[in-house]
Amino acid sequence: MAPREIEEFFHAKIPLTAAMRVRVESWDERQLVVTAPLEPNHNHLGTAFGGSLAALLVLAGYGLLWLELGDAESHIVVRKSSFEYLLPVKGSLRAICPRPSREVMDEFKQAFARRGKARLELHATIEHEGKTAVEFRGLFVALRPQG
Amino acid sequence: MAPREIEEFFHAKIPLTAAMRVRVESWDERQLVVTAPLEPNHNHLGTAFGGSLAALLVLAGYGLLWLELGDAESHIVVRKSSFEYLLPVKGSLRAICPRPSREVMDEFKQAFARRGKARLELHATIEHEGKTAVEFRGLFVALRPQG
Repeated sequence: MAPREIEEFFHAKIPLTAAMRVRVESWDERQLVVTAPLEPNHNHLGTAFGGSLAALLVLAGYGLLWLELGDAESHIVVRKSSFEYLLPVKGSLRAICPRPSREVMDEFKQAFARRGKARLELHATIEHEGKTAVEFRGLFVALRPQG
Repeated sequence: MAPREIEEFFHAKIPLTAAMRVRVESWDERQLVVTAPLEPNHNHLGTAFGGSLAALLVLAGYGLLWLELGDAESHIVVRKSSFEYLLPVKGSLRAICPRPSREVMDEFKQAFARRGKARLELHATIEHEGKTAVEFRGLFVALRPQG
């Protein structure tokens, strides 16, 4: 799926991503990268708002699983999340969600196919000027709706 | 400070809160309550987006400390946060951040006055139909800028 199509899906389905002006920079074998400019996402100090950083990271994790499952019927939700804010972000917000190993992804997909339910912890970061500015861990659950 | 003034401060300083259509429901001896309608904050399933819920909770914590300190010069930032999503939110988002005990607040204010730096953990929740839908814990730091 092309970055532009993923972006359109986000903007259509999750309006906050349009307000944040989220872009999909890349989606490849290694990772999903989503970005947003500072202007609609700054705080009272002119740096990135902690809420915008959190929203971008949750989106990166959700987006990665949605792309991996390739199943429009799956309900993917975040169950738990934690954030560590290490450095202020003084420019564009850029979230990177690496793909888990092939083994972990296969196990997740098999559990989803077999039981209609699977969970997975993802790790993603916000990078700023070559350093990790925010660390994120999120436990996501995919459910196939009943009926 | 009146809810309307707090709201205007949020919208002016943190543009995402205007995009989310955040309102301040109340600010009193007990707690700060901030809300947002579902429409600009829904996800691909029509329930509240995890990123919007996170942003509203971070805002509630930040707002509470900003109001407590009453110091426009203080830099209040979130250092760590964790969220547990217990139930989907199928309507308006409503975040409640209770004031910590008088003792805890006094200690925080004294540390800030003495050292120009203080940290405090806050607990806030999203309530939906009389139940706790999201639990939030955030470690906030207030800093008086040098110079």
